[in-house]
Amino acid sequence: MSDTFKTIGIIGKYGDPSANDTVMRLSTILLEHGCDVLLDEETAKRIPNHNLPTINQAEFGSECDLAITIGGDGTFLNTARNMVDSEVPILGINLGRLGFLVDVSPDEMAARLKEILGGEYEEEHRILLSCTIEHQDGTISQSDAFNDVVIHKWEVARMIETETYINGRFLNYMRSDGLIVSTPTGSTAYALSGGGPILEPSMDALILVPICPHTMSYRPIVLDGDSEVEINVISQPHSHAQVTCDGQINLGIVSGDLVKIRKKDKVVRLIHPHRHNHYEILRAKLRWGEHF
Amino acid sequence: MSDTFKTIGIIGKYGDPSANDTVMRLSTILLEHGCDVLLDEETAKRIPNHNLPTINQAEFGSECDLAITIGGDGTFLNTARNMVDSEVPILGINLGRLGFLVDVSPDEMAARLKEILGGEYEEEHRILLSCTIEHQDGTISQSDAFNDVVIHKWEVARMIETETYINGRFLNYMRSDGLIVSTPTGSTAYALSGGGPILEPSMDALILVPICPHTMSYRPIVLDGDSEVEINVISQPHSHAQVTCDGQINLGIVSGDLVKIRKKDKVVRLIHPHRHNHYEILRAKLRWGEHF
Amino acid sequence: MSDTFKTIGIIGKYGDPSANDTVMRLSTILLEHGCDVLLDEETAKRIPNHNLPTINQAEFGSECDLAITIGGDGTFLNTARNMVDSEVPILGINLGRLGFLVDVSPDEMAARLKEILGGEYEEEHRILLSCTIEHQDGTISQSDAFNDVVIHKWEVARMIETETYINGRFLNYMRSDGLIVSTPTGSTAYALSGGGPILEPSMDALILVPICPHTMSYRPIVLDGDSEVEINVISQPHSHAQVTCDGQINLGIVSGDLVKIRKKDKVVRLIHPHRHNHYEILRAKLRWGEHF
Amino acid sequence: MSDTFKTIGIIGKYGDPSANDTVMRLSTILLEHGCDVLLDEETAKRIPNHNLPTINQAEFGSECDLAITIGGDGTFLNTARNMVDSEVPILGINLGRLGFLVDVSPDEMAARLKEILGGEYEEEHRILLSCTIEHQDGTISQSDAFNDVVIHKWEVARMIETETYINGRFLNYMRSDGLIVSTPTGSTAYALSGGGPILEPSMDALILVPICPHTMSYRPIVLDGDSEVEINVISQPHSHAQVTCDGQINLGIVSGDLVKIRKKDKVVRLIHPHRHNHYEILRAKLRWGEHF
Repeated sequence: MSDTFKTIGIIGKYGDPSANDTVMRLSTILLEHGCDVLLDEETAKRIPNHNLPTINQAEFGSECDLAITIGGDGTFLNTARNMVDSEVPILGINLGRLGFLVDVSPDEMAARLKEILGGEYEEEHRILLSCTIEHQDGTISQSDAFNDVVIHKWEVARMIETETYINGRFLNYMRSDGLIVSTPTGSTAYALSGGGPILEPSMDALILVPICPHTMSYRPIVLDGDSEVEINVISQPHSHAQVTCDGQINLGIVSGDLVKIRKKDKVVRLIHPHRHNHYEILRAKLRWGEHF
Repeated sequence: MSDTFKTIGIIGKYGDPSANDTVMRLSTILLEHGCDVLLDEETAKRIPNHNLPTINQAEFGSECDLAITIGGDGTFLNTARNMVDSEVPILGINLGRLGFLVDVSPDEMAARLKEILGGEYEEEHRILLSCTIEHQDGTISQSDAFNDVVIHKWEVARMIETETYINGRFLNYMRSDGLIVSTPTGSTAYALSGGGPILEPSMDALILVPICPHTMSYRPIVLDGDSEVEINVISQPHSHAQVTCDGQINLGIVSGDLVKIRKKDKVVRLIHPHRHNHYEILRAKLRWGEHF
Repeated sequence: MSDTFKTIGIIGKYGDPSANDTVMRLSTILLEHGCDVLLDEETAKRIPNHNLPTINQAEFGSECDLAITIGGDGTFLNTARNMVDSEVPILGINLGRLGFLVDVSPDEMAARLKEILGGEYEEEHRILLSCTIEHQDGTISQSDAFNDVVIHKWEVARMIETETYINGRFLNYMRSDGLIVSTPTGSTAYALSGGGPILEPSMDALILVPICPHTMSYRPIVLDGDSEVEINVISQPHSHAQVTCDGQINLGIVSGDLVKIRKKDKVVRLIHPHRHNHYEILRAKLRWGEHF
Repeated sequence: MSDTFKTIGIIGKYGDPSANDTVMRLSTILLEHGCDVLLDEETAKRIPNHNLPTINQAEFGSECDLAITIGGDGTFLNTARNMVDSEVPILGINLGRLGFLVDVSPDEMAARLKEILGGEYEEEHRILLSCTIEHQDGTISQSDAFNDVVIHKWEVARMIETETYINGRFLNYMRSDGLIVSTPTGSTAYALSGGGPILEPSMDALILVPICPHTMSYRPIVLDGDSEVEINVISQPHSHAQVTCDGQINLGIVSGDLVKIRKKDKVVRLIHPHRHNHYEILRAKLRWGEHF
């Protein structure tokens, strides 16, 4: 039994029945190693006769030493936001398709967990964003994001206009389809589609990537991780915009709303198998080395 | 009086009262040259005491030898779609800010019109697109576009999935925020924001520009102007899409709808002052020659 | 025996002994179909005991109905430049690795040639460039290019400065590492590395792609195929430049030299198997459809 | 008189006689403030009758409290490399054209120096690179770079092949025209021409920017500033390469040579006027806010 990871919570991908089998195989492996296993309540609802104690994700922090997500990067993103305040470490198991975050395959799951529970693992810390929207009417919305906060046009074909400030200093005015504020983790997600650079995932930095800017002189900008980014969506009768976190959480905004984004003071703790190699994942996912 | 341009219709920018003065100055100039002047009905509504006969834009084809638009490129785009079936030639006058399409400034309006009415002008032909949507329910939508037809995600943060066929041959499957199908005229508009190349405006070609594609291996593609482009929006429970023509006309689509785009058999006839130089406009608008 | 392709000349890749076996297998197939086979002299030198009549590439035009190249795209480029004046059609056989131009694999060579000699084939015409350099000292250099003419810095770390004219009209001044003038065929070669668009290969168009321009406002430009491009390399004590055609032929230039590029009046005649699909090659070579 | 900056060394742009007048005006201002002024020996040679004590740049470290460069960013780069080991702070005065590094104009020179000598200034620290080449024959070359180290093809039209390792881990194999390793300072220089992102200049990070890579799947990569980058230039009979630091220093390499790049342990100390705003410089130099 692991000294570090005694009680382990399991979360399976939402809406994917094929995850259930892997959840049950994993729980068997963990029980054989003497761990206590808790099943996420929502995951449990979709698995008949699991015979495992269940737990709400909000209680992982007080009950679990490790969270294991089974699914794709999307499942991991959701778990990461839920775990960040309690800083429970997370391990990601994929369903056969390598992800940037879920780097253990079901085939090697047993072998890797034996090593990890035996103390052979690497722990990596990654930053996460907090997005606060100060609405014109005095109310406030808030969400965390592990990949990115995207301010984008909504229900409208026209561009939006934004003013961006960094640490209170005016950076630029932009007309565009939107603006991506990404963590290093998000640099291989939507920010990459928008033309952004790839960052070492453990860096303490933010990336601003304009989406289809109405000028050729804008480029992605990399900022120190401690920067506070403020984006002012400028009033226009015909423009509409929305804020989306990790492609999963939508927050409505109207012209005049102020979007503030900064790093959270807690980190996401990723558990990787020993000899984890991020560059291998990059090469495999981005097909480096294959030339036309 | 011009032998070619005897009856001239004038269209002023919608929603811009500052255009009215230029409309009236222009009509005076044209009347002094012995032309008959007709005022677009909608433009006329916004100008009190104009004392000019009015005409619906739908009748320009049967009544006018030349249409003159006063405003920005947006006003010109709208006029171009309205005039294309009757192939009335169009001259664009801007309101002080050079456009790619409206290349005569109010200051030089009198001098340039004297030349043009005296026969000194250049006529340029440009292609225009027809977009037909075959809906799943058997209905059909249609619109023309002078700049571009854009298939894009709508009311949703997720990507859309499309399959593109050229002349019935499968080109590719793509996950992206959308796809721009642009004329050479549109190559300096939204397609440029999306990373597309600049085309000589009189070329007989179409451009496909992906918007934030979920892969690094897509590039803008330039096709022969006679190509028929078919885009199939693939069924997904959570994805929504819309078609927008010239950023002005929205056509709703649902998964399974088929979007067909091809060149119209009529052209837009642009009238330019003598010694018109498109490269000068490119250099001025895109700020070529200014290095960092 | 083919009515069209009676006498066939074969050219094997230079410097690749592995091509020899395919050359001999091909000649056997052609002889069995009753064709007369002539072996390129240079290819013949590298194959002992071939027992075939040989011919200089310069005589292919008067002696052969078809040229077959065995090798990669580089071998095809070289043959295409050699054949263009006599307009001998060319078929490309690869050595196991699909090329944009050499689309028949050795495995399917026998089956495809049976069809082609039986009259089942497609003929495609592609443009080719002629590059003429008017040197300061009154001399002239000339070369053809099937992919591209590249003006680039040489033996120097600094940028070069160029002025570009299209049909005698000034387009722009640029400081950069160089400028690629590409055919549609070349749009999937070096121009693609430089950020250019992909063109339908049979289009009548030229592409200008700047290499690392010292401004953000330049984009690739697509011109009508009949355009004459003139590039003036501006005098600077420390800058040096060179012109390279198809990555194979180097022509020295000094400051003040004038580089003129225009389409040749003859075309390259490509022979493809029936049901040839250029989009399949694009998808395979550029790995379209594989998403991160 | 300044308590901090008592003895000040002045360096004028090489090969620009127009700098001489500004050098002399500056020395007068500094003497009036009670400073001791030393003139760089090379600068002094080009100014007749200057009546100032002269000093070799190598002695600035032991003699000067502040170095002031008069010229463009190129002059500053050269000074920065010369001063880094002694960590003498540097102030940059331009010759009328704003630079990213030389942000004080001659017009405001007197006012800004009064403030700076009175203690009102900001000091910013920036990283600098050390590039070491381990040649096949056992010899070693070394140079520092403040903007960038560029490995690029040389005297050859073909691509070079490189293998890159980060902290001893294999990152990727690439065929390209070259590879830029840039500091945040260099992110607005050659790396920007190559398509790289803009970094906050005070960040502790390195950027890898491929030049015309022979694949579409490479993007600029941002690494932690402590990373050691090793680039192995792969042996090919026809390929040649060279290393260039800051566009100013060339180091020859042959196939098989190993290029090692890492941050120096000393920083460049930039002195800025109070209320210095880097974003203002970005907006002015990159023409942000001007839309097409």
